[in-house]
Amino acid sequence: MKKILLLGAGRSASTLIKYLNEEASEMNWQITVVDADLALLERKLSNFTHCIAKSVDIREEASREKLLEGHDFVISLLPWTLHSLVAVDCIRLSRPLLTASYVNEEMRLLSDEAHSKGLFFMGEMGLDPGIDHMSAMVLIDQIRKDGGEIIAFHSYAGGLIAKESDTNPWHYKFTWNPRNIILAGQGTAQFMDRGKLVLQPYPRMFENAFPLEINGDDRYEVYANRDSLPYRQILGLEDIPGILRGTVRVRGFSKAWHALIKLGLTESQTHLMVVDSMQWFQLMDALLPVNHQMSLLERCADFLGLSVNDPVMDQLKWLGIFEDRIIGPPGKALADYLQFLLEDKWQLEEGDKDLVVMEHRITYRKDGTTYQIISTMEYEGKDETYTAMSDLVGLPLGVTCKLFFLGKLPPVTKPIPVEPGIYLPVLELLKHAGVKFNDRKIVIEQA
Amino acid sequence: MKKILLLGAGRSASTLIKYLNEEASEMNWQITVVDADLALLERKLSNFTHCIAKSVDIREEASREKLLEGHDFVISLLPWTLHSLVAVDCIRLSRPLLTASYVNEEMRLLSDEAHSKGLFFMGEMGLDPGIDHMSAMVLIDQIRKDGGEIIAFHSYAGGLIAKESDTNPWHYKFTWNPRNIILAGQGTAQFMDRGKLVLQPYPRMFENAFPLEINGDDRYEVYANRDSLPYRQILGLEDIPGILRGTVRVRGFSKAWHALIKLGLTESQTHLMVVDSMQWFQLMDALLPVNHQMSLLERCADFLGLSVNDPVMDQLKWLGIFEDRIIGPPGKALADYLQFLLEDKWQLEEGDKDLVVMEHRITYRKDGTTYQIISTMEYEGKDETYTAMSDLVGLPLGVTCKLFFLGKLPPVTKPIPVEPGIYLPVLELLKHAGVKFNDRKIVIEQA
Repeated sequence: MKKILLLGAGRSASTLIKYLNEEASEMNWQITVVDADLALLERKLSNFTHCIAKSVDIREEASREKLLEGHDFVISLLPWTLHSLVAVDCIRLSRPLLTASYVNEEMRLLSDEAHSKGLFFMGEMGLDPGIDHMSAMVLIDQIRKDGGEIIAFHSYAGGLIAKESDTNPWHYKFTWNPRNIILAGQGTAQFMDRGKLVLQPYPRMFENAFPLEINGDDRYEVYANRDSLPYRQILGLEDIPGILRGTVRVRGFSKAWHALIKLGLTESQTHLMVVDSMQWFQLMDALLPVNHQMSLLERCADFLGLSVNDPVMDQLKWLGIFEDRIIGPPGKALADYLQFLLEDKWQLEEGDKDLVVMEHRITYRKDGTTYQIISTMEYEGKDETYTAMSDLVGLPLGVTCKLFFLGKLPPVTKPIPVEPGIYLPVLELLKHAGVKFNDRKIVIEQA
Repeated sequence: MKKILLLGAGRSASTLIKYLNEEASEMNWQITVVDADLALLERKLSNFTHCIAKSVDIREEASREKLLEGHDFVISLLPWTLHSLVAVDCIRLSRPLLTASYVNEEMRLLSDEAHSKGLFFMGEMGLDPGIDHMSAMVLIDQIRKDGGEIIAFHSYAGGLIAKESDTNPWHYKFTWNPRNIILAGQGTAQFMDRGKLVLQPYPRMFENAFPLEINGDDRYEVYANRDSLPYRQILGLEDIPGILRGTVRVRGFSKAWHALIKLGLTESQTHLMVVDSMQWFQLMDALLPVNHQMSLLERCADFLGLSVNDPVMDQLKWLGIFEDRIIGPPGKALADYLQFLLEDKWQLEEGDKDLVVMEHRITYRKDGTTYQIISTMEYEGKDETYTAMSDLVGLPLGVTCKLFFLGKLPPVTKPIPVEPGIYLPVLELLKHAGVKFNDRKIVIEQA
């Protein structure tokens, strides 16, 4: 029997636990799931007969070592700051490690060390990062094999809500870490457009969102994701004149989010010395320029340069920021109060289905003709637990673990899944699990 | 002979070293000055016969302890992150400690510990923080003694350039840490206006700068300094309906700085993957919306909603951001490139004199009449070494040290100079050194 250790059982672990449990009989696995909240974890695992719940403090070296020693394969869904602790021990104890998190410089070096010892070590094996790299690499390989010269790589992804569960004017609910959404874009977006570097400082990236049609549905929009340029190296597209990674939302989201930014509600540094039980309308009153002739709503519209009937004002009103709702405890930042509010307003309801969309558009030249391959994935969740997010983070991890124990993974040298020995078998198993892209090719400019 | 240890000999230490050296004969002092760059330090100290130059790694415990043991009084101008190391040792070795830095929670606790042992320990003994607290406390005391009820406390301060040395359209040169200027205001400004909380998120605080007349000179403006509210407690004005601390600039600065913010040039988080030897006009081209019908300058004015002849455009042009100057090494953030540029453009020239202005406006009611006390300090530097900044940070430290050895400081309980036993003698000696406020009282509303 092989023992698998899963560290972290948060929202994105649901599908992974279910998958590992389903495969456990055939694969002869036993799975230990570790999380801080043991009671909650035991409830989560009550129907999964091959899974054992444990509560271990991962920061504590002796317990961590003992835990790792008792297992054959480690999957970490811990916060990324804890990964290096686990990684160092995995290398010392020769335990394979798999994560869905971004590989930073420290993890890259640890990964190199592990690989030099012949140990399986892999990060960025989730949705984004993960499925995005893998699906793009397949297309890039095909085009190159076909003799095409890639001139632009555009890749868009978004965690949204299925149409049937879309019940609010933002067309959005949280299916992922709310904090990341609140702070999204704080920095400077960088991308290349026809050989020209484009820099979009926060908040201009939301202001500059552009419409997107996916599979004939024109309800989408995209804003630039801050870190397009590193993907040139990741994908082996170093000298490409055009590269843009973008985040997909339903049209109208970005303009309204831009309004929240302009109001200052995403500012996360300053602890506000507000009074106890301050209410949202009072907070907005403190934020907006004073004008005794106008209502709070009118002051807000005026400040934003919008008519009070603008759809953005409906989106803001729907959030309740002009109402008498209590903002939260004193001493937090504006971004925290916004997060408290949105965590309630954008909560997934029972039966809600989410939707993940991902689309690569790769433009290339061959024999004087310019083509574009458009490769699209639309994936709906089952319900509010087995979300598309949870499936698309958990399944790549799960199938990689299975491939490892089936002996179907060759030795790798890179810390992320950009080698065909990895991404081809992983994508193949994902396809069986219903995760697939539809490709079409169009002619942009005939020779 | 008493031995004084001065840690840190940066720009703001010039006057302090000169003062300590001048007093050394009469006070029977010997002064050790410690800095990382020994050669530079020895040059700095060459004319100061009572001063010894030393280079010691303060982070190294044994050397630090040995250094402190050999001295009777410690003044730290180190970066604030190193203060607690020194403070812990000072307490253990019973050495008095004096700094000009903000007292954070950790230093507050260490200060309490020192005071409970009867040890002299004091932070915020510079200009701002320092002279600002002390001069305000004198006024607040007077008003209270007189039976007045304080209803608003406005305090403005700025490190500027004397008119005779004002040679650029920003009317500004660096006399203080450039980094602090570049990142100024990143957060949310908080203050109280007639009983109402006002929040100004970055960058609105620069947009909302208001004109200020100082001693009949109307060339100034003020933007809200982010942290007005904590000063209620510091100054014992807990329930005051109005409190605003502001930063003074020469009129026009804030509007142009707002333009730099809007362009994104103060963003400090994202490392730009720009090419080697990128030039400023190329960086601006990357930042500005594309428009092939317009020049770079026109695109910038258009983006900012200004005419190309707007004074702000002259200020931007003067910086050279539309020219072929190299921005700096790749991999830095926009704020870094802006800093490299401004450190050159806003450099103090030989013979330049700086100017510090500080003005408190305290409004109070007595017998139905509303009065305002306006208390103003204008202080010019001697040259580019003995700046007003250097004098106004160094002299409070120097005279406090002198008062300590004269036995004229009573035991204190607070970590900052808000007790009359401290601020009265310090202000008295500062007055002799030419640091003084002129007060006038006006009637705002007659009973």
